[in-house]
Amino acid sequence: MTNKDVSTPASAQTSPDGAQSHAQGEAGKSIGWHKAYIEGSRPDIRVPVRQVHLTNGSSVSLYDTSGPYTDPHVDTDVRRGLAPLRQNWIIARGDTEEYPGRPVRPEDDGIRHTSPRGGLRNLDAVFPGRPRQPRRGRDGRAVTQLAYARRGEITPEMEFVALRENVSPEVVREEIAAGRAVLPANVNHPETEPMIIGKRFLVKVNANIGNSAITSSIEEEVEKMTWATRWGADTVMDLSTGRNIHTTREWVLRNSPVPIGTVPLYQALEKVGGKAEELTWEIYKDTVIEQAEQGVDYMTVHAGVRLAYVPLTAHRKTGIVSRGGSIMAAWCLAHHKESFLYEHFEELCEILAAYDVTFSLGDGLRPGSIADANDEAQFAELRTLGELGRVARRFEVQTMIEGPGHVPMHKIKENIDLQQEICDEAPFYTLGPLTTDIAPAYDHITSGIGAAMIAWWGTAMLCYVTPKEHLGLPDRDDVKTGVITYKIAAHAADLAKGHPGAQAWDDALSDARFEFRWEDQFNLALDPDTAREFHDQTLPAEPAKTAHFCSMCGPKFCSMKISQSITKKFAGDVAEGATAEEVAEGMMQKSREFAEAGHRLYLPIVD
Amino acid sequence: MTNKDVSTPASAQTSPDGAQSHAQGEAGKSIGWHKAYIEGSRPDIRVPVRQVHLTNGSSVSLYDTSGPYTDPHVDTDVRRGLAPLRQNWIIARGDTEEYPGRPVRPEDDGIRHTSPRGGLRNLDAVFPGRPRQPRRGRDGRAVTQLAYARRGEITPEMEFVALRENVSPEVVREEIAAGRAVLPANVNHPETEPMIIGKRFLVKVNANIGNSAITSSIEEEVEKMTWATRWGADTVMDLSTGRNIHTTREWVLRNSPVPIGTVPLYQALEKVGGKAEELTWEIYKDTVIEQAEQGVDYMTVHAGVRLAYVPLTAHRKTGIVSRGGSIMAAWCLAHHKESFLYEHFEELCEILAAYDVTFSLGDGLRPGSIADANDEAQFAELRTLGELGRVARRFEVQTMIEGPGHVPMHKIKENIDLQQEICDEAPFYTLGPLTTDIAPAYDHITSGIGAAMIAWWGTAMLCYVTPKEHLGLPDRDDVKTGVITYKIAAHAADLAKGHPGAQAWDDALSDARFEFRWEDQFNLALDPDTAREFHDQTLPAEPAKTAHFCSMCGPKFCSMKISQSITKKFAGDVAEGATAEEVAEGMMQKSREFAEAGHRLYLPIVD
Repeated sequence: MTNKDVSTPASAQTSPDGAQSHAQGEAGKSIGWHKAYIEGSRPDIRVPVRQVHLTNGSSVSLYDTSGPYTDPHVDTDVRRGLAPLRQNWIIARGDTEEYPGRPVRPEDDGIRHTSPRGGLRNLDAVFPGRPRQPRRGRDGRAVTQLAYARRGEITPEMEFVALRENVSPEVVREEIAAGRAVLPANVNHPETEPMIIGKRFLVKVNANIGNSAITSSIEEEVEKMTWATRWGADTVMDLSTGRNIHTTREWVLRNSPVPIGTVPLYQALEKVGGKAEELTWEIYKDTVIEQAEQGVDYMTVHAGVRLAYVPLTAHRKTGIVSRGGSIMAAWCLAHHKESFLYEHFEELCEILAAYDVTFSLGDGLRPGSIADANDEAQFAELRTLGELGRVARRFEVQTMIEGPGHVPMHKIKENIDLQQEICDEAPFYTLGPLTTDIAPAYDHITSGIGAAMIAWWGTAMLCYVTPKEHLGLPDRDDVKTGVITYKIAAHAADLAKGHPGAQAWDDALSDARFEFRWEDQFNLALDPDTAREFHDQTLPAEPAKTAHFCSMCGPKFCSMKISQSITKKFAGDVAEGATAEEVAEGMMQKSREFAEAGHRLYLPIVD
Repeated sequence: MTNKDVSTPASAQTSPDGAQSHAQGEAGKSIGWHKAYIEGSRPDIRVPVRQVHLTNGSSVSLYDTSGPYTDPHVDTDVRRGLAPLRQNWIIARGDTEEYPGRPVRPEDDGIRHTSPRGGLRNLDAVFPGRPRQPRRGRDGRAVTQLAYARRGEITPEMEFVALRENVSPEVVREEIAAGRAVLPANVNHPETEPMIIGKRFLVKVNANIGNSAITSSIEEEVEKMTWATRWGADTVMDLSTGRNIHTTREWVLRNSPVPIGTVPLYQALEKVGGKAEELTWEIYKDTVIEQAEQGVDYMTVHAGVRLAYVPLTAHRKTGIVSRGGSIMAAWCLAHHKESFLYEHFEELCEILAAYDVTFSLGDGLRPGSIADANDEAQFAELRTLGELGRVARRFEVQTMIEGPGHVPMHKIKENIDLQQEICDEAPFYTLGPLTTDIAPAYDHITSGIGAAMIAWWGTAMLCYVTPKEHLGLPDRDDVKTGVITYKIAAHAADLAKGHPGAQAWDDALSDARFEFRWEDQFNLALDPDTAREFHDQTLPAEPAKTAHFCSMCGPKFCSMKISQSITKKFAGDVAEGATAEEVAEGMMQKSREFAEAGHRLYLPIVD
């Protein structure tokens, strides 16, 4: 460790609250937090942590997804992009080669379908950063972390995540080799700080961003990405469907410290003017290569939506709610043919293996309402995803499986149990699930409940849902609310799974609460800004931040104060693990002392 | 039913969104909702419902807690109070009598401890409504719903809740008689619309209000109460600890259509100047009578905090976090005596029986942090609560049991299972539980997760937690957020428990979503205002509310539209329950028709 005073190996993540504003403070009082690094076996393995300095002199180190943006010693510039952290590791393996790559074409940005009014390509938008050629596996080799893990190699990426998760590198290698975890790391996205998705590790959170045909710009999407990772998003999916899809993605990738996922089908559909039946394997394949060359780390592929399953959705309350699923269903019906994604799946595996793109096998037939949960269509597709996962791993492609959706609480466990059984324990990646449909505008909460539960039972990554779900496009505040809600769900699951170190964070905050260390409570909070703001709304004065009471009870009623006195009275005398009799005896003695001391557990303050 | 067009016996509750603003609309289009009543066996049994009128001509009827305030035919005035709905039922039973009652004394409002600056009693604040004398059981009789239920009587209150819950009155009577449900209904609070708390019924939500020594006025508290019930609070606890406790409670009671709960110990402590050791059974008893005469429907009594348990908290991370619990602990230690609440419990039962005040046996030793969950102190107290519950029911006093608190997910089920076993299935009433401590400012969410789970497993009522928990006093917005979050948790649990009729609400909203009936989605939403506002932020124009797409995907990508086409293609031809072969055959035929019709599932819109 570069910082010797880290006292707690807390492993759950937290949220930098912007710049260094809380890092200054009076000597001996709150000095907030700073970005620190855990060094590995070589100097270029440096794992970021958010180190919170407590007023009692100790410090707590928290998982940090915010990238170099929160390090004042790093000069970041979105027009240049992040430093290619993994570049040397990738080159040193010697199994990849640079090549000219597929030329970027106007239709990659949807130019073919641009109207004269305002839709013309803005050349300034082209990413201005360092020139680069794409890279891929030599001679069709699988250059995947899965391939290395199977060969017994511990890569720098694996060591990085081992330090990050506080486990041994061998555990990381084993879980990847067994297909129970994925480490998404496209060789063309060397900017990522490696992270791992698997049930033996901390539960991860994905945030979706992306423009649509209706609204939002490249700039907004890049900002949403850095904002989401600042609050704790472990991966980001760029689900853009409007114009400038290629260019937006380039900006996002070059500036992202976390793995980026996409749904290539969305861009492919744009290339055929939105007509599902005009999609072809060739157009899809071209899009996958385009995105793999840019550095997309994982791709949602709806190859499980087979022709025969489409009619199973006819009697549903809400039919097919997955965009990818409905596009493939429309294609299958139009041609009365088996899905081209299913038919060409092995060829797709070869492509993904050459870049180390991870499969996220999409659940195109997931339920879109409580009424449709756990039905035949959903589980028929899941069985196909299990089959496809085995094919993918045969090609040494890392694979995770997507899950629902809308599921009432009593039907959630069946989802994860079946998925783990059918898909050989491949990481499950679920959207919520939403546990009721009655609360549009609060679906971060309806789904946060389901997300916490399914993660406890083994889901490895949770796709966030924002308050705008079903209603509109999330803005910056919605992104933050969605990420924070899902960090809560993920951390609650880490606690319930007994993840080593997870409770240290809760304990540090509870200690600060019991001891009225308000500044420490704020700095340890998942969202320090809002915690501080809420406190100040009721008790704004600076002394209130060191007051030994709070606004809920006022100075007279504070149970924490009474309780502190009890602790002081007994803690020294009644040993932990004492019998009831010993406790009673110690207590009686203390009661006499207490009476002699004037019957005061706290000082009443006359108001 | 007074309204014959109610199509769905949906039983979960919803939220009036203020006035009748959405009740007008163009003929044949959205006409919003209105307040309706289900009539019972006699004209004075009228159960309110929120009836939502859908644009497809049907309507949905939802549980309604908002009281007469949302009925435009009722003229309400907070200075007069609500009409005493149950008055005649109470009088007709002939087992109660009016009596002069205890005189109200200045110290009931904390006058003794008022400072000269600004704290003088505002005489204008005295409730100006109708003069009333308190009422109690004649000759020490137990005039409780439990006593009636045991005698086989179905009271008007029981019939009211049976209609409200869509079950038979006999089920209501049986559950109350067995002590598995309570119907809080003080004879001095005839303004309440009867409701029931028990695991066989809809999960209920309590909202806390109350001023403190630091801030807030009577007016604010009354407004918080009506606001909380407007969004769905089933009961309200007045936890005031500052000045004007008596008067604030009077205003709240006279204007509340839902049962009101209190913690009498808070007011008793004010009467002794905040010095716990000066509390006596006499002062406490006087306070209980004072509050029973006013009409408090249920009282939290921390009689399970026994002297011997206090030392069990000494090694806790956060000691005793219950205010009542810590006051009693301080008293026990100061006197080295058994708790006066425990010692005088039978006498307390006699008092509560004479007014039909329901016990809420408080969990004074509940855990205040993840680290302290399910410890010896907590469960020792729970065993005592089980014992006290049996005593209370012997006196025919209705009883529920309070529960935690802060509990990680994997330890939640043990809480409800143990409570049900130890306390003879008495209704469990829990605060959350919070599933992690790391997110101050978001504890409505950390606890909403735990609340949904524990309610699914049998908790009958959930005490809400607002975003301000641990930080400050909730304002109007916080109250709303807390109630909405807990209504979500409660409804998710109703679904998971398979409560009859609960899913009808979800289904109605999902149908509206699938058919792009935006106005119906808004009107059916738990919070129509926010749902509408979020939609309009992205697509503000009026036509967007009838658009067959939404802002997430835009017009080209809408999966719902594609799906609708699939449904239309197949639904008529493939019978529900058809075999895989029949489905495949029907599908192939449809595929040919589809091709012939021009391969269009939706109309691409050129942007």
